[in-house]
Formats: sequence, structure tokens, C-alpha cells
Amino acid sequence: MTIEVVNLTEKFSQITDQWDPKIIAQLNNYHLKIAKIQGEFVWHSHSETDEVFLVVNGFLVIHLRDRKLNLNPGELCVIPRGVEHKPAADDECQILMVEPAGTLNTGDAGGERTVEETAWI
Amino acid sequence: MTIEVVNLTEKFSQITDQWDPKIIAQLNNYHLKIAKIQGEFVWHSHSETDEVFLVVNGFLVIHLRDRKLNLNPGELCVIPRGVEHKPAADDECQILMVEPAGTLNTGDAGGERTVEETAWI
Repeated sequence: MTIEVVNLTEKFSQITDQWDPKIIAQLNNYHLKIAKIQGEFVWHSHSETDEVFLVVNGFLVIHLRDRKLNLNPGELCVIPRGVEHKPAADDECQILMVEPAGTLNTGDAGGERTVEETAWI
Repeated sequence: MTIEVVNLTEKFSQITDQWDPKIIAQLNNYHLKIAKIQGEFVWHSHSETDEVFLVVNGFLVIHLRDRKLNLNPGELCVIPRGVEHKPAADDECQILMVEPAGTLNTGDAGGERTVEETAWI
């Protein structure tokens, strides 16, 4: 059994592509994932799970159908299951997510931006 | 339904007591908790769950029976279920934890430092 210290800065340095989440840790059947994002994602929801977003660097906007959430570094939110949302960032933003293993980035929307197999880094 | 932005700095400012974890968010049946810690905790393990520790501020040492983990801000680790560990910090340290709702801070060890009812802030 290996218990490793995971350094977020070092893990983000391994990511080159935006909107390409990577798994950095596993907690029971949950994954901690990180991603670099910029621009607008697709509207989607997850019918089976809530989803945590924590901003590590940059500025994240999560559009909801009736308003938007503005998150600075050190801020987080939980998007409840079934709630449509669209993450966006004007400049590159580094985020940490917590969600059940197997949760797809595009949720129930699918489409060409879906990452079918999220890799570990 | 309320979806709130949670600011870690603001939440930590509400905590006065050390070793007194507070819940700041819920993800399905998991809680995100924060705590201020200083000194040494008790040796314990959680037979039913893994546990995530992320250092937000300060310097955390997690003693294992055969070695110790040193975590700086922006570093995290997962203590697997059943693994004995003892968190410690020379100076006050601010940590974020992720674990199933109802997980006790002292795990299977119990004792006077157990927080039976973890409050929301």
C-alpha cells in the first residue's frame, strides 16, 4: 500500500490540455480530479451525483439557468445532482473537483467534449 | 434549493477551537470539513472509510506507524481505511477533510477528544 503526498502545483504542471480532467487521488469510490479550463464548457447536469468545484488558481464562473456563481481561489461550491450548469473562465483557471469515480465531465449531455476515460496523473 | 459559494478563509475565521472540525459542504453522503489543529492528536484509524486531508494553511505532519507524511499548503493525501494515523502540527494548521457523513474524528479509537456531533458553519 502506498500513501503519497500529492502536490497540487506539481500535478497541475503535468496538465497541458484545457478541459481535460485528470485523477489525482481516490477516496473510497470517489475521485479527486483537477483540470485547467478556459472559455465556456457545455451545459450539462449529472442526474446521479452532486459535484464539488474548488478553485485553486484563477477565476471560475459557473452559469446556472437562473444566475451565475463567481468563484475565486479558495472558494468552492457544490452543484447538486440534476442541476444544469456551465463552467466558464475568461482566463485559464485551475480547479479541483470531487465526484464519484466514473462521473463524466459532460454528465448527461454527452457530445464531442466528453472525456470517456479520465487518466490518472 | 440553495447553491452557495463557500469561501475557505471566511469559514476558517469562524473557527476558534482547535481540533473541532466543522462541516462546510455536503456532496451526496460525504462531508467537506475544515479544522484548525495544533499539537498532536490521538492515534486512530477508520475501519469503514478512506479519509482525505488537504492543507490550506500551515504545515501538517501525519504520523503513520512506519513513517510520517509532511504536508505543505496545497498538498493532500488519502489515508486508506484501517490505517493508523496521528495528525500533528507544531504551529496552527488549517486543513480541509473529505469523508463520509458521520465519520468521527477519532475513528475507532474514541476517547475524550471525540466530537460526537460535528456542526455546520
